[in-house]
Amino acid sequence: MKGIGVSPGVSIGKVFLKEEIEIDIEKKSIHNIKEEVDRLNTCVHKSIEEIESLYKYTLKEVGEKEAEIFNAHKLMLEDPEFIGMINQKIEDEKVNVEWAVQEARNEYVQMLESLDNEYLRERAADVKDISSRLLKNLIGIKGVDLSSLEEECIVVADDLTPSDTAQMRKDKVLGFVTELGGRTSHTSIMARTLELPAVVGVKDITKNVKDEDFIIIDGNEGLIIINPSEEEIATYEKKKESYENFKEELNKLKGEESISKDGVKVEIAANIGTPKDIDKVLENDGEGVGLYRSEFLYMDREKLPTEEEQFEAYKVVAEKLDGRPLVIRTLDVGGDKDLPYLDLPKEMNPFLGYRAIRLCLDRTDIFKIQLRAILRASAYGNVKIMFPMISNIAELREAKAILEEVKSELRAENIEFDEELEVGIMVEIPSVAVQSDIFAKEVDFFSIGTNDLIQYSLAVDRGNQDISYLYSQYHPAVLRLINMTIENGHKEGIWVGMCGEAAGDEKLIPILLGMGLDEFSMSASSMLTARWIIKNISKAEMENKVKEVLNLDSPQDVEKYIEEEITSKI
Amino acid sequence: MKGIGVSPGVSIGKVFLKEEIEIDIEKKSIHNIKEEVDRLNTCVHKSIEEIESLYKYTLKEVGEKEAEIFNAHKLMLEDPEFIGMINQKIEDEKVNVEWAVQEARNEYVQMLESLDNEYLRERAADVKDISSRLLKNLIGIKGVDLSSLEEECIVVADDLTPSDTAQMRKDKVLGFVTELGGRTSHTSIMARTLELPAVVGVKDITKNVKDEDFIIIDGNEGLIIINPSEEEIATYEKKKESYENFKEELNKLKGEESISKDGVKVEIAANIGTPKDIDKVLENDGEGVGLYRSEFLYMDREKLPTEEEQFEAYKVVAEKLDGRPLVIRTLDVGGDKDLPYLDLPKEMNPFLGYRAIRLCLDRTDIFKIQLRAILRASAYGNVKIMFPMISNIAELREAKAILEEVKSELRAENIEFDEELEVGIMVEIPSVAVQSDIFAKEVDFFSIGTNDLIQYSLAVDRGNQDISYLYSQYHPAVLRLINMTIENGHKEGIWVGMCGEAAGDEKLIPILLGMGLDEFSMSASSMLTARWIIKNISKAEMENKVKEVLNLDSPQDVEKYIEEEITSKI
Repeated sequence: MKGIGVSPGVSIGKVFLKEEIEIDIEKKSIHNIKEEVDRLNTCVHKSIEEIESLYKYTLKEVGEKEAEIFNAHKLMLEDPEFIGMINQKIEDEKVNVEWAVQEARNEYVQMLESLDNEYLRERAADVKDISSRLLKNLIGIKGVDLSSLEEECIVVADDLTPSDTAQMRKDKVLGFVTELGGRTSHTSIMARTLELPAVVGVKDITKNVKDEDFIIIDGNEGLIIINPSEEEIATYEKKKESYENFKEELNKLKGEESISKDGVKVEIAANIGTPKDIDKVLENDGEGVGLYRSEFLYMDREKLPTEEEQFEAYKVVAEKLDGRPLVIRTLDVGGDKDLPYLDLPKEMNPFLGYRAIRLCLDRTDIFKIQLRAILRASAYGNVKIMFPMISNIAELREAKAILEEVKSELRAENIEFDEELEVGIMVEIPSVAVQSDIFAKEVDFFSIGTNDLIQYSLAVDRGNQDISYLYSQYHPAVLRLINMTIENGHKEGIWVGMCGEAAGDEKLIPILLGMGLDEFSMSASSMLTARWIIKNISKAEMENKVKEVLNLDSPQDVEKYIEEEITSKI
Repeated sequence: MKGIGVSPGVSIGKVFLKEEIEIDIEKKSIHNIKEEVDRLNTCVHKSIEEIESLYKYTLKEVGEKEAEIFNAHKLMLEDPEFIGMINQKIEDEKVNVEWAVQEARNEYVQMLESLDNEYLRERAADVKDISSRLLKNLIGIKGVDLSSLEEECIVVADDLTPSDTAQMRKDKVLGFVTELGGRTSHTSIMARTLELPAVVGVKDITKNVKDEDFIIIDGNEGLIIINPSEEEIATYEKKKESYENFKEELNKLKGEESISKDGVKVEIAANIGTPKDIDKVLENDGEGVGLYRSEFLYMDREKLPTEEEQFEAYKVVAEKLDGRPLVIRTLDVGGDKDLPYLDLPKEMNPFLGYRAIRLCLDRTDIFKIQLRAILRASAYGNVKIMFPMISNIAELREAKAILEEVKSELRAENIEFDEELEVGIMVEIPSVAVQSDIFAKEVDFFSIGTNDLIQYSLAVDRGNQDISYLYSQYHPAVLRLINMTIENGHKEGIWVGMCGEAAGDEKLIPILLGMGLDEFSMSASSMLTARWIIKNISKAEMENKVKEVLNLDSPQDVEKYIEEEITSKI
């Protein structure tokens, strides 16, 4: 059976089939409204307690970013919106609380799913998870507890909620297979974080296997084999071994430099969201942090973080990196990232709207506090500042002027910071790539943000499934803009990095090396593979390939060319 | 007093102050719901009749596009959404119909206005207009009838609704001044259509003038002078005269070629929306139609137009143009242009979504009917086809393949069409400008759509007021993309036009001539001014200016340079 391989590796083992418990809710007319509302409150209270303990468990066993999901769940249960909807149904329709929960869940999920946006569809999964927790607590069903699995197994399910994956014990679960989900669904992200092979989007898998069936899953190819033959098992044991050997080979690269066959050294760095993420970066021998998404400090809270909170969050990372570069991107909210307490305007096209530097130059009160915190942290490591969403030179100049103002204030207060601190910009809006010769004269570095650059260059919202076939990092126009940016940066003697997803794409790394990219910033788990690729190619050879690639017609041609002429030959 | 000059020219005359009638609605509890609903229905019926007669009057006196507003009003009164909201309020809250109308109006308007999108804010104006008509009919107030003005006057008002402007008699009204409104508001568009000087956004003007006051309005500068001195009157009489002389000079250009001082001939063409618009194009001696927005044929109706309806709409324009070129753009809906009967998905970022060619390649049933109609019309004139929103070469090839299919069908049916019909694309997505060398090999022409090109190149929704300061046709990156497109087009021997608003911008025309633009397509009323500019500049000289402009830093520098070095010297 075929699905989407979302986390690499091969696993062979017995199935644990996590069946959905179908809860059949009956609608009942009730007379005592207060009693139902009390039942709801008790159950919300209990659910919050459970979620808090899941939060602590995940924080300890998995990571801060993953644990944040449960913080979001908790907030949703404390927030009057969803719970208010349930309350209102009980009062208006005089129905039992179970029915009210189910109805509110369906309406809310439908609303979110109709929005056709990946980020908000994830929220729908959260609403489902919370509602199912509420219902189980109301009815008194325990549900399958994945934390009590006793034997090693491969979990097969319709879908896995954040609560499910958080409970799994790494030493028992060998991999996941689910019917639902895509590359960016929660299950997929968790599988990669836990380094477990996973295949999602496998139609009818829960109908085709039963507990104790033997299966093979191949997360690289997205393959499932149910009750395989001896021969198949042998083949996949070998595949598993060679994948594990490769992983070991990667481990041996720790401590080495990222240097091409012809002696060109580049920097392989990581994108991080929270201070906790830095551990994984160090574990994978990251050479720096190319993108610290400071917005996570501002999210899932009720007010702005203070200067002190920010300073601590930047300083701890700077110190842990111990002299390796740390690029902090200033606040990038708006677009699909809302901060409820800022009361941002509701926009027709948020991706083309009031966000990132546009907001910061308008709300200099917020911006200055962040700049102070970053500058102060720069006394403790190799910190650099990066401005997102710059579209014209006036914005850059204004941002730099505010930075100078903040520096003067700090000097007046005798507060230390790095006087040599580098200032750069994200190149993620087409106009900046096109004018990169001009911008290169006024910054210390560029970091190409491919996710947005692709989106704007092709006028394609990457979260919109109806047109996602048009979104491609192999589009020749995008590659031309990247190449132009690198060339113009080098002409002015500044370094050029990339912190979009393309920087970690195994197929694009050789092309980017050929273009002369100096720094590749990606998710921590991809860094060693990237180093391995760099060590196995020669820049001079890739320079020639780049010339050919830039003159190809279509994304499809580019991808095919790279596979045939480069990837298959490494 | 200062405002925004939205329609050029100078007028001097007496004020007619159109005061808003404050209708004070009282909330009443009612017992007979049926009676209130009947009152609503009677009043809706009466209002529809009034609107129908306004429609006819406007169609005859002003134009089809302007009359369409009343069709939209009528649809809104027939549509269950708004009227249903009123009905529901009467039934649920047991209130009088007047109160229900007012509440529904407020909620609806607030909802639309909160969307922060120019197009939808215009709809809010329509809801206000309709509601005020309903209320006046319910209460029995006649309101000021602008059609019965007996003396020449300058109308001063808080705001003018479509109903107000439609009733004005051109021989009585000398100009408008309003407190509200912007360049794209209904009032502004009407003023330009009627060729009346107008200034909008003049704070407190209704408080500062009274009926019979004497005022001067200067629509070029956005100036208002109340009760001017003799001297001021003399100055402005002179200004008025020189403006009218210039208009006359422009009139003398009819029948001449659009040819620069050094003998380079270009084509000055028009953008049109409906067949009726062609009259104004011919009146202003247009050399062709560079953009026929076919989507108007699909809007404000309840189902798709038939092949026959479309054929007629294309044919009549092709015939009237009598051999001059007619570029028909295939259906460009989605984004801010919805077609309710197509049930398009609700999107997070419609401008980066499922629209134009993306929709057509998905809905080939709709696309093929349009292509048939266009091909059939091509037997009656010099028709060309243009595809909008192309982002990669595969889309162009697919669209051309479908066109070939349709041609084969027509040949098999022995239906005539122009076998030499040219096929081009809009260059409005950055990737296409960047890859214009590749695209030029597979099309007969390019037409640069600056409105979208700017929007995507700068990642700025042009309808979003919070960031509209970033949107500029003078951005050097945009000018570089335009220049690149023209150069690459010419290298492959194809012609390059422009149909975005920049093509009619008096400041940009010299630069575009310098870049080598072959065709300038704009609103019909700008064409003669454009011809006048072309005749007063030399291309060779502009080529040198282009080199300088492309190396400037910022939009502000570009605009300043053009004003100082070019515009002021013509």
